[in-house]
Amino acid sequence: MARSWLDIDPSSDFSLANIPFGIISTPDDSSPHVGIAIGTYVLDLKVLALQIGPENLLPSGGASSLAVFAQPTLNAFAQLGRSVHRHVRERIQDLLSEDTTRPDLLKNNAELRERALVPQQSVQMHLPMVIGDYTDFYAGYHHAYAVGVMFRGPENALQPNYTHFPVGYHGRASSIVVSGTPVRRPVGQILQDPKADPKRPTVAPTQRLDIELELGCFISKSNPLGQPVGIDEAEEHVFGYVLLNDWSARDIQAWEYVPLGPFNGKNFATTISPWVVLADALEPFRTKGIENPTPVQEYLKEKREATVYDIHLEVDLTTPEGNTSTVAKTSGKNLMWSFPQMIAHHTLGGCPLRPGDLLGSGTISGPVPEQSGSLLELSEGGKREFQLNGGNETRMFLKDGDTVTLRGFCVGKAGGRVGFGECTGRVQG
Amino acid sequence: MARSWLDIDPSSDFSLANIPFGIISTPDDSSPHVGIAIGTYVLDLKVLALQIGPENLLPSGGASSLAVFAQPTLNAFAQLGRSVHRHVRERIQDLLSEDTTRPDLLKNNAELRERALVPQQSVQMHLPMVIGDYTDFYAGYHHAYAVGVMFRGPENALQPNYTHFPVGYHGRASSIVVSGTPVRRPVGQILQDPKADPKRPTVAPTQRLDIELELGCFISKSNPLGQPVGIDEAEEHVFGYVLLNDWSARDIQAWEYVPLGPFNGKNFATTISPWVVLADALEPFRTKGIENPTPVQEYLKEKREATVYDIHLEVDLTTPEGNTSTVAKTSGKNLMWSFPQMIAHHTLGGCPLRPGDLLGSGTISGPVPEQSGSLLELSEGGKREFQLNGGNETRMFLKDGDTVTLRGFCVGKAGGRVGFGECTGRVQG
Repeated sequence: MARSWLDIDPSSDFSLANIPFGIISTPDDSSPHVGIAIGTYVLDLKVLALQIGPENLLPSGGASSLAVFAQPTLNAFAQLGRSVHRHVRERIQDLLSEDTTRPDLLKNNAELRERALVPQQSVQMHLPMVIGDYTDFYAGYHHAYAVGVMFRGPENALQPNYTHFPVGYHGRASSIVVSGTPVRRPVGQILQDPKADPKRPTVAPTQRLDIELELGCFISKSNPLGQPVGIDEAEEHVFGYVLLNDWSARDIQAWEYVPLGPFNGKNFATTISPWVVLADALEPFRTKGIENPTPVQEYLKEKREATVYDIHLEVDLTTPEGNTSTVAKTSGKNLMWSFPQMIAHHTLGGCPLRPGDLLGSGTISGPVPEQSGSLLELSEGGKREFQLNGGNETRMFLKDGDTVTLRGFCVGKAGGRVGFGECTGRVQG
Repeated sequence: MARSWLDIDPSSDFSLANIPFGIISTPDDSSPHVGIAIGTYVLDLKVLALQIGPENLLPSGGASSLAVFAQPTLNAFAQLGRSVHRHVRERIQDLLSEDTTRPDLLKNNAELRERALVPQQSVQMHLPMVIGDYTDFYAGYHHAYAVGVMFRGPENALQPNYTHFPVGYHGRASSIVVSGTPVRRPVGQILQDPKADPKRPTVAPTQRLDIELELGCFISKSNPLGQPVGIDEAEEHVFGYVLLNDWSARDIQAWEYVPLGPFNGKNFATTISPWVVLADALEPFRTKGIENPTPVQEYLKEKREATVYDIHLEVDLTTPEGNTSTVAKTSGKNLMWSFPQMIAHHTLGGCPLRPGDLLGSGTISGPVPEQSGSLLELSEGGKREFQLNGGNETRMFLKDGDTVTLRGFCVGKAGGRVGFGECTGRVQG
């Protein structure tokens, strides 16, 4: 990867190899609009585009217009399609490169640099997309297995359908919030004594507030009602990826979820990271996922073997006193189903996906407890406190004032880290 | 109820007592905009509003503007709140009354009548709202019980949580279509032999295509993230009601729904009737629902006893040859949970509802088979063919070319029928 004329720390998630897109507002422009993250800066694309003109940013001859960068969401940009995303990303990479082909445009244009490059700490991030529908899958094999063992024992841990298709459910779009938004501990119906007869639920704040470490995938290209997306075309429908924390109230969920699935145990908040990492930026980090012991149906068969991404994933928990522990480390390769498989399955019966729709991977855990993407696994089903760093404090589930921060990044062989930044939220009582 | 100067047949769903709102395009104006149904006509509110001015349609001094009637959806009008809906409906009722206070505006204005009153048959109807999130409940007690008996026997027909809160799940908003849209028979994974070990699903068009007769409730007023809607305030968050057909592929659903709920068995299409009957129009038809044997939690306790509506509901099935049978008749009173209870429960943990969000009641069936809101019940779980009119033809589930039409209406003591019109869809192979 080329070097940038900007000073970018090698530990930055936002190297020249990344160029993730987000919705920003800045000290100079409080209307949300489009920017990209680079090192410790945001490059304001609304400012840049107006200055350098469409010919230096967008493919020529297309229907695309610079107005997409002034929009308050990325939906319009996403709809332009993957070849446009690729073109724009490559143009920005060139403009920011030490050996840019057009030093006149930005590198040597002090006035524009001053206006278009804004320190990240002074920028407010917004939800990147208007999310029409949100679907949450369950493709993290180790999580599905571990939770299944807790509820049904090792013999019946996975339902018979698990290896036949990517199991998922419709989630709630209205409560998806951008990283940094406080998360209020939800009140709900809880069965304190599951063995009592008759059942006597109470209404109380959840006592088992949990997280779920997931990857989120934003859709760029729609399919019409009634027309499935073939597995080989599914990649063309992907805009990019974010980290996703599917906050979960385990006690509310346990009482409500039979027979129609999770509801109030999930719909109080889902946090996503603000920067959408384009599918192209993750291409170099493809890897094989968890092997599926079952031969899959034709509509789920992918041509390539490396269908998921080797993304390092971490969960940090910060106590109200400010002590931070990394409580889990796992990888994006712990998925048994890929996003193209999820898209092919989701649309098999003709369900339309629309630009801005969000797919969650399901909780990503490794095979051992310290690789757990949920506290449910770390606490062995809420039976055992786990240690935070230093050893004085423990947790089973989240306390008021706790902050959970998800991180995710890939490191290329020649450097050039591609990361997501933070996906964080603080629990309010 | 006053009489109209328009000739309205007593059997019309769209009496002066109704005034339902919808999104229309007309021979003169192909841009979708707002109209109301009256008799066999549509009253074009975009045309009317421009002509008679805001003072004759909207409350004075408010922030509301006539521009809401030129919008391609009812979301902006819905957001104005129930007092504005009431005012506008009452103004329109007055304008259309035999003894209107302002005969000059419409009754005696032949030129405006000609332009603003459009025969319904020449009007195209569109989806009335942009639907952010769709939630489907399961409040039809007799349906839940009958289906529970089929799957788990009479002892365990209802899950223990059923009488404690309105069970529901997040549905798919992107595949909600307006009445008249063809419904394509979905392909999906189906387990032909559920007892085989190992399980061997196939991929095929559903062989068990079903309907679900439901009421839909549109939300007008949002609640912020983290702030529940109290049961006594819930009515103020309701815009109005539609008929809803939750098309279901029973074989796909049976294989996929454990443990996370229905997915591809439902998300291929949901049809709604085009006219939103305002909450006020249904007020005279309040009645008690199914008695709940369990004392409910405080947050679900309503002050009044009559919490649901006595709406006559019918399911018509028209064969490809054009023979129509009414296969079921039931009533809106067969609900154990009311929409205000659904709203209070949905928001208990802080989930935001937004204007245009849609809640489905769940299938509404009576206690006997001919009152079934689904073919699953009519066919006793797909075990017995049921007769269509005339007796020559039978069905278990839907065939290609079948058309299903839901109807719903209330009849006031002094006449003045309040109905929904048709909610119809034809099955395509």
